[in-house]
Amino acid sequence: MAGSSFGQIFKITTWGESHGKALGVVVDGVPAGLELSEADIQAFLNRRKPGQSRYTTQRSEGDEVEILSGVFEGVTTGTPISLMVRNADQHSKDYSNISHMFRPGHADYTFWEKYGIRDYRGGGRSSGRETIGRVAAGAIAVKILKQLGIDIVTYTKSIGPVEIKKFDLTEINANAFYMPDKEAAVKVSEYVEQCMADKDSAGGIIECRVSGLPAGIGDTVFEKLDANLAKAIMSIGAVKGFEVGDGFEVAKSCGSDNNDDFIVDNGNIVKASNHSGGILGGMSDGSEIVFRAAVKPTPSISQPQQTVDVDGRPQRIEIQGRHDPIIVPRAVVVVESMAAITMVDLLMTNMSARLDSLKDFYK
Amino acid sequence: MAGSSFGQIFKITTWGESHGKALGVVVDGVPAGLELSEADIQAFLNRRKPGQSRYTTQRSEGDEVEILSGVFEGVTTGTPISLMVRNADQHSKDYSNISHMFRPGHADYTFWEKYGIRDYRGGGRSSGRETIGRVAAGAIAVKILKQLGIDIVTYTKSIGPVEIKKFDLTEINANAFYMPDKEAAVKVSEYVEQCMADKDSAGGIIECRVSGLPAGIGDTVFEKLDANLAKAIMSIGAVKGFEVGDGFEVAKSCGSDNNDDFIVDNGNIVKASNHSGGILGGMSDGSEIVFRAAVKPTPSISQPQQTVDVDGRPQRIEIQGRHDPIIVPRAVVVVESMAAITMVDLLMTNMSARLDSLKDFYK
Amino acid sequence: MAGSSFGQIFKITTWGESHGKALGVVVDGVPAGLELSEADIQAFLNRRKPGQSRYTTQRSEGDEVEILSGVFEGVTTGTPISLMVRNADQHSKDYSNISHMFRPGHADYTFWEKYGIRDYRGGGRSSGRETIGRVAAGAIAVKILKQLGIDIVTYTKSIGPVEIKKFDLTEINANAFYMPDKEAAVKVSEYVEQCMADKDSAGGIIECRVSGLPAGIGDTVFEKLDANLAKAIMSIGAVKGFEVGDGFEVAKSCGSDNNDDFIVDNGNIVKASNHSGGILGGMSDGSEIVFRAAVKPTPSISQPQQTVDVDGRPQRIEIQGRHDPIIVPRAVVVVESMAAITMVDLLMTNMSARLDSLKDFYK
Amino acid sequence: MAGSSFGQIFKITTWGESHGKALGVVVDGVPAGLELSEADIQAFLNRRKPGQSRYTTQRSEGDEVEILSGVFEGVTTGTPISLMVRNADQHSKDYSNISHMFRPGHADYTFWEKYGIRDYRGGGRSSGRETIGRVAAGAIAVKILKQLGIDIVTYTKSIGPVEIKKFDLTEINANAFYMPDKEAAVKVSEYVEQCMADKDSAGGIIECRVSGLPAGIGDTVFEKLDANLAKAIMSIGAVKGFEVGDGFEVAKSCGSDNNDDFIVDNGNIVKASNHSGGILGGMSDGSEIVFRAAVKPTPSISQPQQTVDVDGRPQRIEIQGRHDPIIVPRAVVVVESMAAITMVDLLMTNMSARLDSLKDFYK
Repeated sequence: MAGSSFGQIFKITTWGESHGKALGVVVDGVPAGLELSEADIQAFLNRRKPGQSRYTTQRSEGDEVEILSGVFEGVTTGTPISLMVRNADQHSKDYSNISHMFRPGHADYTFWEKYGIRDYRGGGRSSGRETIGRVAAGAIAVKILKQLGIDIVTYTKSIGPVEIKKFDLTEINANAFYMPDKEAAVKVSEYVEQCMADKDSAGGIIECRVSGLPAGIGDTVFEKLDANLAKAIMSIGAVKGFEVGDGFEVAKSCGSDNNDDFIVDNGNIVKASNHSGGILGGMSDGSEIVFRAAVKPTPSISQPQQTVDVDGRPQRIEIQGRHDPIIVPRAVVVVESMAAITMVDLLMTNMSARLDSLKDFYK
Repeated sequence: MAGSSFGQIFKITTWGESHGKALGVVVDGVPAGLELSEADIQAFLNRRKPGQSRYTTQRSEGDEVEILSGVFEGVTTGTPISLMVRNADQHSKDYSNISHMFRPGHADYTFWEKYGIRDYRGGGRSSGRETIGRVAAGAIAVKILKQLGIDIVTYTKSIGPVEIKKFDLTEINANAFYMPDKEAAVKVSEYVEQCMADKDSAGGIIECRVSGLPAGIGDTVFEKLDANLAKAIMSIGAVKGFEVGDGFEVAKSCGSDNNDDFIVDNGNIVKASNHSGGILGGMSDGSEIVFRAAVKPTPSISQPQQTVDVDGRPQRIEIQGRHDPIIVPRAVVVVESMAAITMVDLLMTNMSARLDSLKDFYK
Repeated sequence: MAGSSFGQIFKITTWGESHGKALGVVVDGVPAGLELSEADIQAFLNRRKPGQSRYTTQRSEGDEVEILSGVFEGVTTGTPISLMVRNADQHSKDYSNISHMFRPGHADYTFWEKYGIRDYRGGGRSSGRETIGRVAAGAIAVKILKQLGIDIVTYTKSIGPVEIKKFDLTEINANAFYMPDKEAAVKVSEYVEQCMADKDSAGGIIECRVSGLPAGIGDTVFEKLDANLAKAIMSIGAVKGFEVGDGFEVAKSCGSDNNDDFIVDNGNIVKASNHSGGILGGMSDGSEIVFRAAVKPTPSISQPQQTVDVDGRPQRIEIQGRHDPIIVPRAVVVVESMAAITMVDLLMTNMSARLDSLKDFYK
Repeated sequence: MAGSSFGQIFKITTWGESHGKALGVVVDGVPAGLELSEADIQAFLNRRKPGQSRYTTQRSEGDEVEILSGVFEGVTTGTPISLMVRNADQHSKDYSNISHMFRPGHADYTFWEKYGIRDYRGGGRSSGRETIGRVAAGAIAVKILKQLGIDIVTYTKSIGPVEIKKFDLTEINANAFYMPDKEAAVKVSEYVEQCMADKDSAGGIIECRVSGLPAGIGDTVFEKLDANLAKAIMSIGAVKGFEVGDGFEVAKSCGSDNNDDFIVDNGNIVKASNHSGGILGGMSDGSEIVFRAAVKPTPSISQPQQTVDVDGRPQRIEIQGRHDPIIVPRAVVVVESMAAITMVDLLMTNMSARLDSLKDFYK
């Protein structure tokens, strides 16, 4: 099936494998009139680029993006924007030893069962490099949101046992883990060093906050804002959980605590608290959107593991090569991108919710 | 936008409001040749029916389903199956006092902001009664899964602070909370009694397990099995979190613990553990699918709450009428239904994954 | 597959068989704030109702529509509108003689080959009665178009060898054939009488004109206005051809004749001619939209025909019962409905074509 | 809106402008296990390449395709196949004189009205070069069809007043017009020479025949085979009409002539004639699929024409540069491609039509 497109009237289609010729994305439904340059997109790609700290893979991926269509004289024309990144650093030999084995925690086995063939080089289509297309598209979506006064901030909330204790916006881009808490980041670096010494890896939680989203975005039934965000975020490899607002904590709460009172503030209807995470009945409620994603530890570890090969024989595997001991920091921009793409699409489909809007538009 | 359809080639479209004339669903893409009667569907609807215990609303909703199309001489014909439940018990007067107020924790405000009009009777389209269509469709999906040797079991894992300590399949339908642990159910009844005495409500966690799903179901990128399940489950009102396998616990785990080794068992490739919850790289891995949903406490509570009316004036609200102190038990079958619908669709789209399958089919 | 839905953000889903309990449609994505009553819809259904003249089947189908959801206090709420027509006149015995035979020109054989089961009563899902759902939805779409100043007129252009020679709008609803030319209608009645005497049937051409559609509706590549109209119209049973503007005549034309010059009229850019039928490059060009559909002769004729039964044995068949000698007049409103549904959807998706529109909307 | 994707589970997404950096397509949902090389695709692209005869534009477009993803060791892997053609010959200066004018018969005006910005170089996204992506994808679709025993042949049926009188399969690729009738091709060359001398252009009709398609492909209501083909074909620029089987001729026919009798031939149920063009009730009937497309004369002519510029001032325009006096021959492979893409998708979605098929597949 065609499973590489996301979105309805703002739609992205990603393509490419880890060690193929290139990876990319077609971003369709971008409104005409947006100034857009390769620098806009490169800035986002650089946030997911490896090799930025000793806690991310030391592969030198250039990841330079090329705009192939959809932009004329620096401005979008309403036609699909094709973005491509050539794969430069294809150390295929690094992967040849695992070509016939199913790495634990990876998609090797399931891909094989589904398709009966597999590009085993670096995980092929199931590699984290697939997110290059998502992030390139996310750069466009975030730029559109900004034009509408909508801000999105994404950061690491916790890694292993270390959780942030404070929120310092300026700190997020100042440490290797994209954490808004300098002290927490220091503790995390110690924790990850230990993981590396143990030939092991770590997981964590990413949090995203969106402000400025008008009330009423998302739909009442299946196209709920939170349902669409859930699909968007859970479609990122390694994400095993998603929650909005108080999330799993609601299970132990009671209605009188969990409900957010409505109050009047400066003539505006606002909520006195935000347990809902900015979404009620599937639609944005005007408060800050808050959601979290749980990211599993990198499955590629160099400890020996037990597995089976394609001929069904038990095998011992030690994964060599350069791997992130922790995926979380590089996934931050992927979460932000998928959230932005989801919201732009829902902002667009929301425009025809009222007959009056149609009449105003076409009068 | 059209937000009431779910699924791609097995597609459901629900319709109806809490206090409208009727509610229903069109189930399209059902394969021809399935024996189907109203009794099959009624059995599912009865699982979500109110009035079954003192912990669910005492409204007497008959909820009798009528098959209007798509079944001929007891067998499906491949055409859309239209299912309808007439609304019998429409105590509209119960709701008249809240017609101009935004109930905290409900969709009243967001619906109003989106559409500028609102059927305030019982929540209108945002009512839990919308799930009648989902459950009716779910009965068909579960019946198809059974024909393919796929079993699905769904139950309450926790309510408030009380979590199950054991798993007794036969107990699930034997207590009012659909818990597979008799002792836990007793404790829950005490907890919920206290909530009721406090004019308050409780939340909880629902767990779903699917066995027999072949490996390879779901797709590699956006149409991941877990991503689709996440959307399906998060589209249920009151669900605030979704997780697969170890879920949010992965954040504190390490790769060597979280990875599931592959082993050979009786000639089959299986996993030695199931931290993944049966999904790797977005595709089923042949193990049991395990996921959970966090359900918030019923927002309708009879304690006085602070809110605002449609004219922007602060108001004090006390919600009268018959409301569930806990939604969780009635949501169990909704979770099961949405999961089944999701899987049937992915089982269908998976059929063309290999050229050999196409050739076999059309030879 | 799910093949009973049409449209993207204005979406209809039809259901029901000729002789099932009922037929209907769910119309999703209707903007909130439209006044809507059963009378609005009934007026459209009456245009396709049988028994209106001696040239249409004498079955007395009541075809009374019921609005089941989506309308509150006479106004749409943005939620799906479920419309149902109960089947009253189910003379199943009329069809029992053909239950095991494949009627020439009908879907009996293809349906059987696809599904292996068939509701043979009156054609089941492949009956013209399926269009009840389309027409009910069309009534809503046309009402929306009117609110936007867009008018649509549909009529019979020719039946058999008789083509209209003039266009008198007031005449369309004054004759049994919905022809805008009184003299042509008289000639047609003679032609159809002869067909009836011969136990035969006639075909014809339906033309549709839309005025007031703003320029720029439809998209540049696959979602062209004409491509979407083509699918909409060719999805009506018995339609074998579709053309826009000069249509098939363009094959013999030359560029200098076929191109429409642009001129300035009263300060507006308009076209000096309309060979394009109001569509250039897949988008409306501000001129009148003009398209035609070719409708085949009713396949149900009472002459003896050669066919095969479900056991593969040659059979002679004489189709009894009450059948239209000509489908064209009743199909006029179906064509209009499908065109209107198509245009409403494209008007909605067009709203986000420019960044400035998004910024205006959300400022 | 996102209008550059076509298909449901076999989906293509095209991108690129006439004079941008490159054009291409992402083909998603290709089954794993198909041998595929750039030569397979190049062969198709060469059929639409300009400069092949004096009746097509003399631009030298290399149009060399590059496979960027989805193929591993010469075989498809089930992941999206990204195909790209770099634009080599970008004579932008040829088009600068028309940058501020709306060419008659082109999408210049409608694009401008929709988006308010326009890549005027060679028609931008509305150029015939957009079909490069369609044809590249079509090469894959046709290769899949062949694996299933389905053959497709497409040719020019008429140009201007000259229609083929016979069908010689071997002749199709032997003349510049892709006509299966050598004498007709000679007459056409005379006719087109005259058009060129007159600084004018010609139109024509393309016919496509598909054999080997099993009965039952396509769906009963909106997803009819003919409806999907109609959208596919009408989405090709310059196509103004589409018809199946007897097409517009049915309007003058009668039921006794138009119906195709079913007979038994060698134990198989077949039709005695094929007025239906191989489609009954929206599903293939096992006979040859036959459809036609009407293609308008090339709108780019070098005769002076009347138009308006972007500032609303009347202008006289003479289109210079190298243009096809007739598009039809180069559109033949585009029609074939779109038809093949449509059928592959419907063949895939058809696989789940029967419960027994699902049970066989997953047993």
